[in-house]
Amino acid sequence: MQDQVMGMTPAAYAYPLLIKQLLNTPLAHAADQEIVYRGKHRQTYATLRERIGRLANGLSRLGTAHGTTVAVMDWDSHRYLECYFAVPMMGAVLQTVNVRLSPEEIAYTINHAGAEVLFVHTDFLPVVESIRDKLETVRVFVSIDDEGGAAPAHSIPFCADYETLLAASPVEYDFPDFDENTRATTFYTTGTTGLPKGVYFSHRQLVLHTITLMAALASPEAGQRFHRGDVYMPLTPMFHVHAWGMPYVATVLGVKQVYPGRYAPEQIMRLVRDEGVTFSHCVGTILHMLLGCAEAKTVDLSHWKMVIGGGALPHGLARAALDRGIDVFSGYGMSETGPVLTLAQLAPNATPGDTDDEVRLRCKTGVPVPLVDLRIVDPNMDDVPHDGKACGEIVVRAPWLTQGYLKHPQASEQLWEGGYLHTQDIANIDPDGYVQITDRIKDVIKSGGEWVSSLEIESLISTHPAVAEVAVIGIKDEKWGERPAALVVLKPDAAAPASEDDIKRHVLAYSESGRISKYAVPQVVRIVSALEKTSIGKLNKKLMREQFA
Amino acid sequence: MQDQVMGMTPAAYAYPLLIKQLLNTPLAHAADQEIVYRGKHRQTYATLRERIGRLANGLSRLGTAHGTTVAVMDWDSHRYLECYFAVPMMGAVLQTVNVRLSPEEIAYTINHAGAEVLFVHTDFLPVVESIRDKLETVRVFVSIDDEGGAAPAHSIPFCADYETLLAASPVEYDFPDFDENTRATTFYTTGTTGLPKGVYFSHRQLVLHTITLMAALASPEAGQRFHRGDVYMPLTPMFHVHAWGMPYVATVLGVKQVYPGRYAPEQIMRLVRDEGVTFSHCVGTILHMLLGCAEAKTVDLSHWKMVIGGGALPHGLARAALDRGIDVFSGYGMSETGPVLTLAQLAPNATPGDTDDEVRLRCKTGVPVPLVDLRIVDPNMDDVPHDGKACGEIVVRAPWLTQGYLKHPQASEQLWEGGYLHTQDIANIDPDGYVQITDRIKDVIKSGGEWVSSLEIESLISTHPAVAEVAVIGIKDEKWGERPAALVVLKPDAAAPASEDDIKRHVLAYSESGRISKYAVPQVVRIVSALEKTSIGKLNKKLMREQFA
Repeated sequence: MQDQVMGMTPAAYAYPLLIKQLLNTPLAHAADQEIVYRGKHRQTYATLRERIGRLANGLSRLGTAHGTTVAVMDWDSHRYLECYFAVPMMGAVLQTVNVRLSPEEIAYTINHAGAEVLFVHTDFLPVVESIRDKLETVRVFVSIDDEGGAAPAHSIPFCADYETLLAASPVEYDFPDFDENTRATTFYTTGTTGLPKGVYFSHRQLVLHTITLMAALASPEAGQRFHRGDVYMPLTPMFHVHAWGMPYVATVLGVKQVYPGRYAPEQIMRLVRDEGVTFSHCVGTILHMLLGCAEAKTVDLSHWKMVIGGGALPHGLARAALDRGIDVFSGYGMSETGPVLTLAQLAPNATPGDTDDEVRLRCKTGVPVPLVDLRIVDPNMDDVPHDGKACGEIVVRAPWLTQGYLKHPQASEQLWEGGYLHTQDIANIDPDGYVQITDRIKDVIKSGGEWVSSLEIESLISTHPAVAEVAVIGIKDEKWGERPAALVVLKPDAAAPASEDDIKRHVLAYSESGRISKYAVPQVVRIVSALEKTSIGKLNKKLMREQFA
Repeated sequence: MQDQVMGMTPAAYAYPLLIKQLLNTPLAHAADQEIVYRGKHRQTYATLRERIGRLANGLSRLGTAHGTTVAVMDWDSHRYLECYFAVPMMGAVLQTVNVRLSPEEIAYTINHAGAEVLFVHTDFLPVVESIRDKLETVRVFVSIDDEGGAAPAHSIPFCADYETLLAASPVEYDFPDFDENTRATTFYTTGTTGLPKGVYFSHRQLVLHTITLMAALASPEAGQRFHRGDVYMPLTPMFHVHAWGMPYVATVLGVKQVYPGRYAPEQIMRLVRDEGVTFSHCVGTILHMLLGCAEAKTVDLSHWKMVIGGGALPHGLARAALDRGIDVFSGYGMSETGPVLTLAQLAPNATPGDTDDEVRLRCKTGVPVPLVDLRIVDPNMDDVPHDGKACGEIVVRAPWLTQGYLKHPQASEQLWEGGYLHTQDIANIDPDGYVQITDRIKDVIKSGGEWVSSLEIESLISTHPAVAEVAVIGIKDEKWGERPAALVVLKPDAAAPASEDDIKRHVLAYSESGRISKYAVPQVVRIVSALEKTSIGKLNKKLMREQFA
């Protein structure tokens, strides 16, 4: 038990929090449990452990050592899960490449992270070929092919194929102990401005996120959440904040895991039905897409629990999901925060009066998970009251927040000003402790001296029966400073179509009943065919504002 | 945010695992939740937080600083809970004094820990008075009186009474950040040999034990375990391994907490009924006492979940508890291990064939909780097979094990030989990962070249309808080396009395059916009026063997 980093023998009782320790209990009590890829490949946890050993030996042979960065371009798969464990467990750093970025951005992130090994699913060969001359640090290419063939004949000089690499490598690998603060993973945030920025997480942080999330998700309110009897399938890509850390939680729980490959609605629905999926997580856009697909109408979704994050869960969407029997609830976090900070939970004694009440609670940003120190503050970092009205920026401390942005000392300093991570999300907290985000700082609409919540207006518009999707942005107004404008996508199969005036009247009714201020009624409603989104499916309001102006 | 220990300003993103962080979420979402003492005193979590601040200010005024040891002699109370937080949160060390030790042993442990402050419930005044001249390090005495009066007129020079100390101290106390490896608590193990030995735990260890235990206990199998809707009451004394760490878990969950004071069966039953207690934990002896008391017959126990630890859960006792509707299951750990290592859980797909099967699963030692690296090994530290038969010593690594025994380097080195903590418990592990302890190393019976499990024989004898309690020990035998002997306490109200021969025949039947070996049939059965126990209610087999010989 040699400490590789410090070069000294630690005390016998030392127990660094390392990713390998997450495997102790599932291998003890769930070694025969299944991990399924696209319904085509099936393996047990015992095999997962063997393949982790083989992968580590294979990577060693290819020159991967403590501190080497290994980048992966793959769809959600059992292979990705193996990389989640094997790469950090050997002391290397896993870079999960966002395959939805532009080829130039992908090249930028791989170079910036200094990745030396690159795993490439054959679907991404054209992209990698187009940027091959720009990759400055990669010295080893490994191909990934769903059929498990040899490395393809291609201009990229592949050293090996993933499966042949594993087949040629022994199972036994003595994963060492080392400093728990060793970097385990890195990936790049996809903001709407500037170049992607790298965030990074240590073994300690990932272990603490996993165990705490497991404790928080086990809450039995509003249906059983995530427990040993569940069947797990991610619908947030594994390249994006470790699929919200859920594959690690699923593994510790020892549940059956299903990896869907590329997200295709009919494939996802087939897996939900055939594999009995009961627990997933995704952004609202994906849920919206799934509910709208033809296959969804033929599958029983009433055993499916789903955490929605990556943006507010609109009331209309939550209602549509509940109507299909999906146990849907909000989570909140961001790339910089590991990601989970809060989960929407019904208080144990809460008896929602009616469906509207229940929808409202499920769509709340939620209550902080254990250990999270979450405050809402004014620009002087003074706390604002928890009265459900006063708004402030969410600032947080937790044991799993990124230390900063990779090689961006100035941005890192801003992120951590005053000893708290600044989320740039504006929220209120009610007397029961529920957080409600009202806006991003940069999206907040200041009209007539008041702050208008674009998210609240979006949620109200989403309840109109003809509305599929909506975005509300602030547009310049000489008299009021800013006024809200709504961009609306209509449902193609709505019972009755809606005009721009219909939508405006729908919001006006809420204003007249006093639920929202008159400043919140959109001055302009525009019906559009689609909304601008970022690479991970979030609304790109910056682009919308530019296009509107 | 000054680091008090290192004298340097830590990075903005630093998040040491400190006990104060456990309060973040309950104060955010459960500030109005109740904490009840003996049904007489009631306070909210918000008040708990205020009293923690007052206690820290009061202790500061009495000279308590970073590193000072503060010893407590109290029954289970809201005050003890306040000490669990306030003392370590200010950087001091909480010594939970085992009030069931002899006065001389109590003096020894307080001196050995170097406690400077001693809180004394008035019930223990005679004890403290008798050892006052022997206390070498205590310079401040604080009295605790359930009526909250002034410090009693007494020969002990009390500085203050607990309540007057709090009343005179302000609420605001800025609990600092410091090194998470700072010692938080210490207490003394009560072995059957030699002087008590001190174990100790850091902030990091207690936080990790709390969050992991919370995650493990949330498992929904076999009834809901411990969740936000529960009402908690300890029945393992708070002086003993932090009441198995459960008050910390209860606080993070934000549940209603009930502290019973001194354990009196009628008082406990009254609290279960009046306060709606749903979750407790205790040793088998206490459960046995409770089931036997008159009051238990008039109270509905069917909403009560109970973890049994501190020794094997005999089948007969488990069955009796299940018959009363108690959702009873085993846990395993020891003072040195924080304590929890395993919990008995039904696998999600397990459908116990009948009550016997279910009892068997509930009485198993269980499966390790997350992060615990548990092995069964032979004397060369080689793993023995997990076939449900082969036995080895349980050795463990986990993030919350004591570093060793306080000021006992040699015993500490033995405890941690080979980088694993040696439990001295003998166990097997079945192919499903369930651990089953068969004996303590020193209690194992070697008969005719075979190892005979005293715990298994005890469990079988416990199913005899006339048996209340049983202990099986090894006695010397010229031919076989050792043979088992059973000491049996009969139920006073059994439908039919049992003779020593009846008991022997009861075990013989199991031997004839092949369930146990013939060596396991006790050569001697002796009916006794009571079994020898240690101060915390465990069987004292060492004393029994001496008395037998």
